[in-house]
Amino acid sequence: MDEFSLIATYFRNLGPRSALLGVGDDCALIQLAASETLAVTTDTLVAGIHFPLVQDPQLLARRCLRVNLSDLAAMGAEPRWFQLALTLPAADPDWLEAFSAGLAADALSFGCELTGGDTTRGPLTITLTMMGVLPRGQALLRSGAIPGDGIFVTGNLGDSRGALAVLDAPPAHSSAAAATLVERYWLPEPRLTMGQRLRTIASAAIDISDGLLADLGHICERSGVAAEVTVDYLPISTALAAIAGEQAAAWALTGGDDYELCFTAPADQADTVVAIGRDLGVQVTAVGRITAGTGVRCVNAAGGDYKIHERGYTHF
Amino acid sequence: MDEFSLIATYFRNLGPRSALLGVGDDCALIQLAASETLAVTTDTLVAGIHFPLVQDPQLLARRCLRVNLSDLAAMGAEPRWFQLALTLPAADPDWLEAFSAGLAADALSFGCELTGGDTTRGPLTITLTMMGVLPRGQALLRSGAIPGDGIFVTGNLGDSRGALAVLDAPPAHSSAAAATLVERYWLPEPRLTMGQRLRTIASAAIDISDGLLADLGHICERSGVAAEVTVDYLPISTALAAIAGEQAAAWALTGGDDYELCFTAPADQADTVVAIGRDLGVQVTAVGRITAGTGVRCVNAAGGDYKIHERGYTHF
Repeated sequence: MDEFSLIATYFRNLGPRSALLGVGDDCALIQLAASETLAVTTDTLVAGIHFPLVQDPQLLARRCLRVNLSDLAAMGAEPRWFQLALTLPAADPDWLEAFSAGLAADALSFGCELTGGDTTRGPLTITLTMMGVLPRGQALLRSGAIPGDGIFVTGNLGDSRGALAVLDAPPAHSSAAAATLVERYWLPEPRLTMGQRLRTIASAAIDISDGLLADLGHICERSGVAAEVTVDYLPISTALAAIAGEQAAAWALTGGDDYELCFTAPADQADTVVAIGRDLGVQVTAVGRITAGTGVRCVNAAGGDYKIHERGYTHF
Repeated sequence: MDEFSLIATYFRNLGPRSALLGVGDDCALIQLAASETLAVTTDTLVAGIHFPLVQDPQLLARRCLRVNLSDLAAMGAEPRWFQLALTLPAADPDWLEAFSAGLAADALSFGCELTGGDTTRGPLTITLTMMGVLPRGQALLRSGAIPGDGIFVTGNLGDSRGALAVLDAPPAHSSAAAATLVERYWLPEPRLTMGQRLRTIASAAIDISDGLLADLGHICERSGVAAEVTVDYLPISTALAAIAGEQAAAWALTGGDDYELCFTAPADQADTVVAIGRDLGVQVTAVGRITAGTGVRCVNAAGGDYKIHERGYTHF
């Protein structure tokens, strides 16, 4: 199979058709209205680093798409188009069929379409560049948090860290808790609609890919503020509590790959953002507040310092 | 060095600033006018496949940018923004400094800017997604060629194939011809201005990445036509003639990586496209004609069939 038949067989028709021109020319062509802003994000998954060498290609495809979609969610953007760069050791039809099926299913359900990319031979690596749109001037940046704002997170934190513990040392008896965490790891839920609803409410937002402390740290740095997180308020799933025990809070603070949103909003908007979440079936939890200064401080409900030793994931 | 300082040190300020928001948030933000269309293309370079494992990182960066720019040239688009996905075995400051310097130099000279991307650890792989703009409805597609059109190419063909021969078996005595070919391979010249000038003249266009026969074949397939290439008319550099001898024509037909434009235009526009090329310092050569049917046929000037055995490069 050469690369042209590979593309024609597995990647020609993925998702709806709103681009002027998709796969099969030198470039994809996309027309935007003047009142819209294009949001663009890129994420790479490398075999042996971000996932085991042998892995269900359908899950891989879906996770890669969702990880990118999560960045759009954190800007308040709607997904539209994506480019796929796929580096493969060989053109294995079974692998490709499963991969493109996973990609097609999630592209359809999230309303985005493949517009082009590149296929090359080499160590298995997947790079996806996702493009979305949002109304001019309404992007959720990392830079707008001010002292007095509340800090909120969607969903539960630390589940993916729990999944890695399960995958690294599979329990002797498989449990529902372990299975729940592993599925959460492979199929994170990008909070797209939540992000879009927060456009005019949140003062800053980021998706939690490197861990709450690290990612909230980015908001603080870009906004020129400090943050105080109350560890007792962190949303922890029953599955994580069952697997992690006493480490659950530490994993919720430092575990990466959750792809939940962390955002700040004026403190008087707390009820509003929780209600929006309820509308959408998304749990929203207030976990702290923005203060003057620099850095992220963890406290317990009584106000004392909480000591944390792990840091968020960094690649180098 | 963690990934955040890696990005801040080497990739924060590359090129001019026309994006609303570049490196350092969840997505880049780009605003387009309603009369403009966005053109998007992605290319990957893999160490050990597309280039030797140890290679001057400055040349690598520039080649990767130029290969993507060539796709924009083939659409008639103007380059604006790019996303970079860089997978590295380690964060080597010397390597990164040279790579980002090469990227910055070419980004500046071609008028595009880095808007974001991803840095990951793993086997050295570079994926670049380039975005450009063009006036609505003026893109140069592969699909517009009709019987009677002339077939034209820019520059010389086969030089990169000659460079690979030199690199595979370095000559005992280095020659100016060998050095010329190797530089052509590493620093192809994307024909951006030529592509833009051809928007209202060419009926179809592609850039020659897989070899003239393969890429002209794509135009034929997408346009539903056949092509006849007169081998004697192929533009061959004196450097290639010196290195390739009798194989020069075969390499000009099948050698990839030249990143020249192949385009079709009404036969009565031949003088016009040559004159546009002369204006821009770009050699334009008529190499054949579009006919009814399918496939690409090679003939000699006397009209007889020319036998060719090599095919263009395919990855799998």
